[in-house]
Amino acid sequence: MTAAAQTEYPRRIRIGMVGGGEGAFIGAVHRIALRLDDQYELVAGALSSTPERALRSGAALGLDPNRTYATYEEMAKREARRKDGIEAVAIVTPNNMHVGPALAFLKAGIHVICDKPLSTSLKEGNKLLSAVAASGKIFALTHNYTGYPLVRQARAMVAASALGEIRVLQVEYPQDWLSEDLESTGQKQAAWRTDPARSGAGGAIGDIGTHAYNLADFILGIPAVQISAELTSFVPGRRLDDNCQISLRYANGARGTIWVSQVCPGQENGLKIRIFGSKGALEWVQANPNVMTFSKLGQPPQTLTRGGPGTLPASARMSRIPAGHPEGYLEGFANIYSEIALAIRAARDGSPLDPAVMFPSLQDGLKGMAFIETAVASSKKDGKWLDLPR
Amino acid sequence: MTAAAQTEYPRRIRIGMVGGGEGAFIGAVHRIALRLDDQYELVAGALSSTPERALRSGAALGLDPNRTYATYEEMAKREARRKDGIEAVAIVTPNNMHVGPALAFLKAGIHVICDKPLSTSLKEGNKLLSAVAASGKIFALTHNYTGYPLVRQARAMVAASALGEIRVLQVEYPQDWLSEDLESTGQKQAAWRTDPARSGAGGAIGDIGTHAYNLADFILGIPAVQISAELTSFVPGRRLDDNCQISLRYANGARGTIWVSQVCPGQENGLKIRIFGSKGALEWVQANPNVMTFSKLGQPPQTLTRGGPGTLPASARMSRIPAGHPEGYLEGFANIYSEIALAIRAARDGSPLDPAVMFPSLQDGLKGMAFIETAVASSKKDGKWLDLPR
Amino acid sequence: MTAAAQTEYPRRIRIGMVGGGEGAFIGAVHRIALRLDDQYELVAGALSSTPERALRSGAALGLDPNRTYATYEEMAKREARRKDGIEAVAIVTPNNMHVGPALAFLKAGIHVICDKPLSTSLKEGNKLLSAVAASGKIFALTHNYTGYPLVRQARAMVAASALGEIRVLQVEYPQDWLSEDLESTGQKQAAWRTDPARSGAGGAIGDIGTHAYNLADFILGIPAVQISAELTSFVPGRRLDDNCQISLRYANGARGTIWVSQVCPGQENGLKIRIFGSKGALEWVQANPNVMTFSKLGQPPQTLTRGGPGTLPASARMSRIPAGHPEGYLEGFANIYSEIALAIRAARDGSPLDPAVMFPSLQDGLKGMAFIETAVASSKKDGKWLDLPR
Amino acid sequence: MTAAAQTEYPRRIRIGMVGGGEGAFIGAVHRIALRLDDQYELVAGALSSTPERALRSGAALGLDPNRTYATYEEMAKREARRKDGIEAVAIVTPNNMHVGPALAFLKAGIHVICDKPLSTSLKEGNKLLSAVAASGKIFALTHNYTGYPLVRQARAMVAASALGEIRVLQVEYPQDWLSEDLESTGQKQAAWRTDPARSGAGGAIGDIGTHAYNLADFILGIPAVQISAELTSFVPGRRLDDNCQISLRYANGARGTIWVSQVCPGQENGLKIRIFGSKGALEWVQANPNVMTFSKLGQPPQTLTRGGPGTLPASARMSRIPAGHPEGYLEGFANIYSEIALAIRAARDGSPLDPAVMFPSLQDGLKGMAFIETAVASSKKDGKWLDLPR
Repeated sequence: MTAAAQTEYPRRIRIGMVGGGEGAFIGAVHRIALRLDDQYELVAGALSSTPERALRSGAALGLDPNRTYATYEEMAKREARRKDGIEAVAIVTPNNMHVGPALAFLKAGIHVICDKPLSTSLKEGNKLLSAVAASGKIFALTHNYTGYPLVRQARAMVAASALGEIRVLQVEYPQDWLSEDLESTGQKQAAWRTDPARSGAGGAIGDIGTHAYNLADFILGIPAVQISAELTSFVPGRRLDDNCQISLRYANGARGTIWVSQVCPGQENGLKIRIFGSKGALEWVQANPNVMTFSKLGQPPQTLTRGGPGTLPASARMSRIPAGHPEGYLEGFANIYSEIALAIRAARDGSPLDPAVMFPSLQDGLKGMAFIETAVASSKKDGKWLDLPR
Repeated sequence: MTAAAQTEYPRRIRIGMVGGGEGAFIGAVHRIALRLDDQYELVAGALSSTPERALRSGAALGLDPNRTYATYEEMAKREARRKDGIEAVAIVTPNNMHVGPALAFLKAGIHVICDKPLSTSLKEGNKLLSAVAASGKIFALTHNYTGYPLVRQARAMVAASALGEIRVLQVEYPQDWLSEDLESTGQKQAAWRTDPARSGAGGAIGDIGTHAYNLADFILGIPAVQISAELTSFVPGRRLDDNCQISLRYANGARGTIWVSQVCPGQENGLKIRIFGSKGALEWVQANPNVMTFSKLGQPPQTLTRGGPGTLPASARMSRIPAGHPEGYLEGFANIYSEIALAIRAARDGSPLDPAVMFPSLQDGLKGMAFIETAVASSKKDGKWLDLPR
Repeated sequence: MTAAAQTEYPRRIRIGMVGGGEGAFIGAVHRIALRLDDQYELVAGALSSTPERALRSGAALGLDPNRTYATYEEMAKREARRKDGIEAVAIVTPNNMHVGPALAFLKAGIHVICDKPLSTSLKEGNKLLSAVAASGKIFALTHNYTGYPLVRQARAMVAASALGEIRVLQVEYPQDWLSEDLESTGQKQAAWRTDPARSGAGGAIGDIGTHAYNLADFILGIPAVQISAELTSFVPGRRLDDNCQISLRYANGARGTIWVSQVCPGQENGLKIRIFGSKGALEWVQANPNVMTFSKLGQPPQTLTRGGPGTLPASARMSRIPAGHPEGYLEGFANIYSEIALAIRAARDGSPLDPAVMFPSLQDGLKGMAFIETAVASSKKDGKWLDLPR
Repeated sequence: MTAAAQTEYPRRIRIGMVGGGEGAFIGAVHRIALRLDDQYELVAGALSSTPERALRSGAALGLDPNRTYATYEEMAKREARRKDGIEAVAIVTPNNMHVGPALAFLKAGIHVICDKPLSTSLKEGNKLLSAVAASGKIFALTHNYTGYPLVRQARAMVAASALGEIRVLQVEYPQDWLSEDLESTGQKQAAWRTDPARSGAGGAIGDIGTHAYNLADFILGIPAVQISAELTSFVPGRRLDDNCQISLRYANGARGTIWVSQVCPGQENGLKIRIFGSKGALEWVQANPNVMTFSKLGQPPQTLTRGGPGTLPASARMSRIPAGHPEGYLEGFANIYSEIALAIRAARDGSPLDPAVMFPSLQDGLKGMAFIETAVASSKKDGKWLDLPR
């Protein structure tokens, strides 16, 4: 049972949503995630930039028409004034529409849960630094893969030196959905993700490379200090990268590779991470997330399962059902929401936050933007090793 | 996007729960399942047979104390009188507490969603036949494994003769959690499942054998006509079977084996089904439910994925997120709830029910009871082939 | 390095072959197997029942034309007279041509290595009992699957009680090559295997069921005492079984299932064994024979590899190359030959035989015949449990 | 049945061996490989640089003491004079002892089969260019992984454009055996492989990186034109690299990554290759070499098996036994030997060589040396992209 879900808390957190109207993908995912552990109640929305669509989308979700707004600015302003106004907002728009709404809601004293990557540029993302500090509000980023129970297990094992000194990291994240020129067909998801104006300087590296990098960073807890990148665009006419090979140097001397691609036939969503230390190794594959291989040097590899023998508390608290009953992507996503809920409740009550609670923060978002920009710069300089800003 | 979820319908179905209080396992699963697609709102409960516990459990869930009842009888009576009374009830108690509540709620004009197996005996289960007919209400059984998208895919493929004439069925469902005498330690789940008074005549065969049998029945759509069984109890002192080998003969001449066990170290929840026909075969494993192997005779086996190439409409409507983003047990369970929701809404509105909607019914429950009793009888007769009642 | 291969012994054992001429399958396998560890030299043959073909086949193999015989009787007689005559013979004919040649060579004082199953009936096989005893020669049966290093590992682990008390056995051996009426097309392998005159009373159960049963018997070391069988023939016109479901009761109370089939699309040669005891379990799949899963109750499953951590001496002596470099079917087959070679050399030298040496014997062959006949009888009696002769 | 084995040719090729005496690993592998298809007869050897050991090793193999030589020079000279002298020699010594023997035997008119990598430097390897040309003899390199049937299948599929235009290559080859300072323990294999004097400038990149590169080159048939490398040595005191990350640019614009490592716990011999084209992809893993995944864009991935449906002639001719009966490393190695045997026989008979015959050549060896040296140079220049010599 997840820590949040253990007390299916009577008073749900009132939340609103920016984006996620008709035709959107990730908005529906956020709504399931916020609902799954019964921690939130969706009560307001600025669901589309088209007013008519915004209203229709709100109605479909059963929102009060008075709380279905045409713009996020209006929503921030009016919700802030309500006694029963939203306590948090989920921003699920394309990248270029993250920072504006975030600033508005923070200013209105409302916690922000923002989809990744943070922004279209590091510079733009940095605007949030002082805003978050000034607001005293929570800013969370939905790098949902860190919500998987076995990812938490991996992090706890690395922290406990179960692998010894970390030496080698291998992360890969191939997909196939952009193997052809999908953006020219009018497919909405493809269109904005390959458009520099809406996505920023990174294509695949922004869309999924930041996930890969964040996942590695979360598990390792060791800073990457330099990267060398080779970004390629294979599909004729594509304006952003669709295949990225990145080498990493870590502060402790470890070396790593991140490979992300969206032109790999047969790869649906192939996020995989392997970590090798002086005494052991871990391997986890997102598509079958309830198992993880743990190899101690000189011993037979073990298959750890979510909730099975050897489960650490950090993993157990992210899990709802017994081992052998697979949990998946939505549960991992919900875990991020439920972790944030614990933080919001602690803030609400002025109570101390359980130190076990973890969710991606503004810092993680800024690291992701730095990763994108450094990779793009390195690739332009023919793979020159460049320092990652700290 | 699931068919139900497509219209995140504004007016949720009001639902109550019998059982599922503190210390229960499956109750929490039902609550997540009913919440996931936003089709239901839990508003009442008789959550425990101990009144104090019932109240405490209701409070923990944020239920109105006036709608937290000490007994299911009281709940049925009083909810039936309320204008905003529950439209449906979920019964999540041990087997011996299914039929009583079901009769009470049906009589009160409330739809019933009941955990499996149906009852402690076929005779007891049969009492529901006339009650359901008389009530005109929906009676659904949560054989949740039929809610997995690829199980729907399998059924549709078999129905479309993609496998040719069915010849051989192999179902297995090994677990390890009863490898030792857990029931003597006071573990609640083990205690009632190994107690004939609460479980009925079947141990493993009732708890998981009925799932295996129902899954095969659902996919094949061909009646099993005879079975021969060997039921064994390995753990000293155990009063019910913990390992069952069952041979099946099907109406079309196909042969099958169902093996279920709860004494298999390393097997967490190993439900697996394989179906071989004259032209092709399917294999699906519950622990990694987003892939299924399809082998056409004389061609390389194909790996079908949930939502991937070749997905049929019957499977697509059970799915929320793109291929490669794993859905799991809770989503499958939620699919059953969301299918039932469509039926309840159709009943509510007097509108015709989409013929694509499917969920396990009273008939399935009675088939399960007949399966248990026939297997127990065959085993007592040294494996004699016995007819399954039709 | 295999025990035999460790001393790539200078003086090879002179061997002859009966059967295995043009168009045969298993003959070529035996030849590779005898050659692999350099323990044998093929010097004579009665390779076909057609004299012309026998000569041509011998020439193709580079045999001395004087030692290419038209009949096995002639070969036995003349080789026995030669100073450099064969010391052993490999009999690789269809089942109905095993016992005759075996008797002839034993009588001639020549060791016999015979393909499986032993004969077309138990009665016929029993003729060998006194002949072998009288000859003082080795009689070995090529149940080659017991030559796999990890099968040896499994046997040693069971013997060392690593699994506790054995409770449940699951063996399966599906194939697809007889899914259609191949025997009517003139395909030689299919023709004799589905012909009672050449195969005996068992089809799939004789061809692969005996492998499955022998494998279980080898690993468990516990006698099966009763079986109940359901044999079916799915392909119209087929005269022998092509799908067999067998339940087993073991002397210690364990229960088992053997399922073999030759009508399962997508299954090339799917031999798999799982053994569950009170403290642990093993799983091994022939198609990927260099790994085996070992699950201790309450611990994460371990992946044992051929030659990897935890390898026992009984397994190590069957292995030639380091872990991670896959060995396969031919190496397993060669292991049987090399074990026999050690026995032949010990007999030749009058030296004691290393007690670690193991290969299938006449007793194993007779057990296999008893298994076939009891299964056929049980199936005819509608699955009645019948005692296996001891 | 392999093409060579099809005619288990009566007259075997007489072969000698340099190296491979007591304590060696790869020598025994070569001997099994040459024996497996009955194409060669080992008749002479200079098995060790220690004369006494050479004699003892020869005796253990049953070699004629007169043909057990103390030095390769003597062996080349004296075998060349014999009427029944060796026709070919296998050189299985450490890298620094390849070129010397090769020159001697070529000069003596004897075909050379040499272990990989070719030499300790490209310059040294280049000495063979004129020697081979002058001799008119065959020079073959045992990059054995190209002998796997499914690797041949992959090459044929790529050549037939089954994958469309190649875009992305991913090769990895992790091992764990050098995770600790094994070379200091006196382990012979570790000692020479980490010694620049005997291995050359590359550690892991020479030992296994050349395999990975050769495998990619063999399958793709597209020249790599530039590489960027990051070579690391993790184990304190180690003098050569034990982890290598290499990026590749191909002539057609494809991009690739080769990662090899010998410090990865749990990785026994993890060679894996993935190739992604505009229309499809292939994935093959050496540890389970009888299956390969083929994904056509927009279709369910297929599992190709060695000898199974879809097998192309180029693969079928490398295979001995039916699908489902696993072949492994030794069979793949034997395939290289049997291919070479066909070339030697064609040379012997003056007959044309079947164009299907393929085995690694001197050119492949030189490419491998260039790969090592360019990678080492790039790594020293902080990953600068360097041209591979053509």
